[in-house]
Amino acid sequence: MTKPYIFLISDSAGETVDKVIQSSLLQFNRTESYQLIRSPYIEKPEQINQILTRASKNEALVCYTLVNPILRQYTQHLASELGVEVIDINGPIIDALGRLLKQKPKMVPGLAYQLDESYFKRIEAIEFAVRYDDGRDPSGIEKADIVLIGVSRTSKTPLSQYLAMKSYKVANVPIVPEVDPPKELYQTDPSKCYGLKISPVELNEIRKERLKTLGLRPSANYANVNRIREELDYFENIVEYLGCPVIDVTNKAVEETANLILQIQMTR
Amino acid sequence: MTKPYIFLISDSAGETVDKVIQSSLLQFNRTESYQLIRSPYIEKPEQINQILTRASKNEALVCYTLVNPILRQYTQHLASELGVEVIDINGPIIDALGRLLKQKPKMVPGLAYQLDESYFKRIEAIEFAVRYDDGRDPSGIEKADIVLIGVSRTSKTPLSQYLAMKSYKVANVPIVPEVDPPKELYQTDPSKCYGLKISPVELNEIRKERLKTLGLRPSANYANVNRIREELDYFENIVEYLGCPVIDVTNKAVEETANLILQIQMTR
Repeated sequence: MTKPYIFLISDSAGETVDKVIQSSLLQFNRTESYQLIRSPYIEKPEQINQILTRASKNEALVCYTLVNPILRQYTQHLASELGVEVIDINGPIIDALGRLLKQKPKMVPGLAYQLDESYFKRIEAIEFAVRYDDGRDPSGIEKADIVLIGVSRTSKTPLSQYLAMKSYKVANVPIVPEVDPPKELYQTDPSKCYGLKISPVELNEIRKERLKTLGLRPSANYANVNRIREELDYFENIVEYLGCPVIDVTNKAVEETANLILQIQMTR
Repeated sequence: MTKPYIFLISDSAGETVDKVIQSSLLQFNRTESYQLIRSPYIEKPEQINQILTRASKNEALVCYTLVNPILRQYTQHLASELGVEVIDINGPIIDALGRLLKQKPKMVPGLAYQLDESYFKRIEAIEFAVRYDDGRDPSGIEKADIVLIGVSRTSKTPLSQYLAMKSYKVANVPIVPEVDPPKELYQTDPSKCYGLKISPVELNEIRKERLKTLGLRPSANYANVNRIREELDYFENIVEYLGCPVIDVTNKAVEETANLILQIQMTR
């Protein structure tokens, strides 16, 4: 039996159509029962024709993001002629936004990848998060938009990167009872600092897994519950003294924690 | 004059609806002429009712991602009753995928944030890219899925992070004429290595900007064209010797370079 095809057409790199299809596919069992075919940088009717013709010969669904309304119409018409199911991802939204904002859309593909000010701001934020990861250089604390504080294995690094992708400059500071936090932490605006708390039980599980990955025995001090409680107590003292918001990251994906932080950040 | 509203409703964190609206908004002039209101974690008809009622009192567009078909229908009906323009982002796709894959969708919100194997793989990749950034530890080269090679300011760090977000373990190696590349680079599979080349003129511009940001004079050796040519020649020799693919990053956004690398990677 041949697999059904899912074609993704985009006039640019195809990140939007990919995001929508990937999140929708999560609603189905992860089988290898379909074939995903990406066609980025499509700008000519002939290319559309080729893809839709191929789709019409198979069981297929075609999703597209095309900013040119003429190309969108062409796709729609040809699809109904060939009997192919197509879904226009952003066309209806661009049209509705045009009416709402009383503007004509620019109809220029790839605007997400312009090397403009906002692009360089994002790139700088990503480099910033790497440079000031794990308290490497406490001078980052003052320069940062957001400072994350937490004991080992509370997702400080990936969380910093997720926030960096949204153009926030993030520094993160590890908390270890044997080491005084950098003085810069006490000198900076506490409302931009976020403590990351976690349940000792979950942290214990995460650290045991971590040790396993590193090929170490799970009995190490690092994954000992008493040691973990000691670390979390020390952490509590610090964030209480700072008076900064504290987020519970227990059982949360970093995307969810990032969203919570940004919600607080926006009301600052 | 009051601004028109754009409401984003999601039964989860709202990343998909945000991605689609943000990429669509790029087609319009960046004015402060609208207000974006995000309503994540919406699961009850009463909440939908509240948002749509508010929307009906203003000029507004409502976009939503809801996996529950009953909630989707409720939104659709109420919107047409209240005369509010709504756009269902993923409903039509989930329905079409159900028909194509001959499966019933799970109808569980937030599946993108499950702390499952693929989540931890992604988190590990992000931490990996930070740990093995800028040739910090050459032992990362052998462990990596992808190794990026380039002179200073060829987007190695942000590119590593973009690929890490897609769960690839990436190490990057800076090329400086005065320093021999790590021996590990010559011992690893060259087909997973990617050289990042760039036009000397653009690199010169980028480095001059960089020096300005750092508060240094643009005349430093770092942004000198002869020095840049020397670095790029040295780089050319190394990637030629390795026989690895080389990507031209001149005027490319990191997302575009990442896509190019993944296209090659998938055919390996």
